[in-house]
Amino acid sequence: MKNLFQYLDKAFENKLRLGIMSILLVNASATYNTLKETLEATDGNLASHLKHLEKLGYISVYKSFVDRKPNTEYAITDNGKIAFEKHLNTLEEILKNL
Amino acid sequence: MKNLFQYLDKAFENKLRLGIMSILLVNASATYNTLKETLEATDGNLASHLKHLEKLGYISVYKSFVDRKPNTEYAITDNGKIAFEKHLNTLEEILKNL
Repeated sequence: MKNLFQYLDKAFENKLRLGIMSILLVNASATYNTLKETLEATDGNLASHLKHLEKLGYISVYKSFVDRKPNTEYAITDNGKIAFEKHLNTLEEILKNL
Repeated sequence: MKNLFQYLDKAFENKLRLGIMSILLVNASATYNTLKETLEATDGNLASHLKHLEKLGYISVYKSFVDRKPNTEYAITDNGKIAFEKHLNTLEEILKNL
């Protein structure tokens, strides 16, 4: 069995990060609350993983006001898309071999 | 997007553990050295992940002597097979939605 596992990206091992990137891959953007509700995440957990992905340059943050209320929106970056699609292709390759 | 991510098993998030379980899923058993070479793992890393999977009851260990040299062999347990296949099916389901 070829060692495809080494090509998996550590940044996407965690299932919450896998969830965040998956949602942002198939949506132009998503608000903090949409991510939180869809992934049934706690604030602390979601915020720390979003920060980590942002630090890696895989997602970007947009802050605005909607009806005078703060609104935070996230979107995948080009680098994020490239890295995540590589991760997904590797997962697919692994699954094909099992 | 349905929250399939919650059904992923934390025990298999780490790519080395994913590798160990994948090899043991498609082989009756594998020696420590086979796992180490195939996954290009360090001793410390491999040993700790094997111990964790063993503690969870997902793999079992067989110690024997081959040509008077200690030989350690690992195999997936029934529980390991059930849990890992559930994890793989969830991954497949997620990939289908992307």
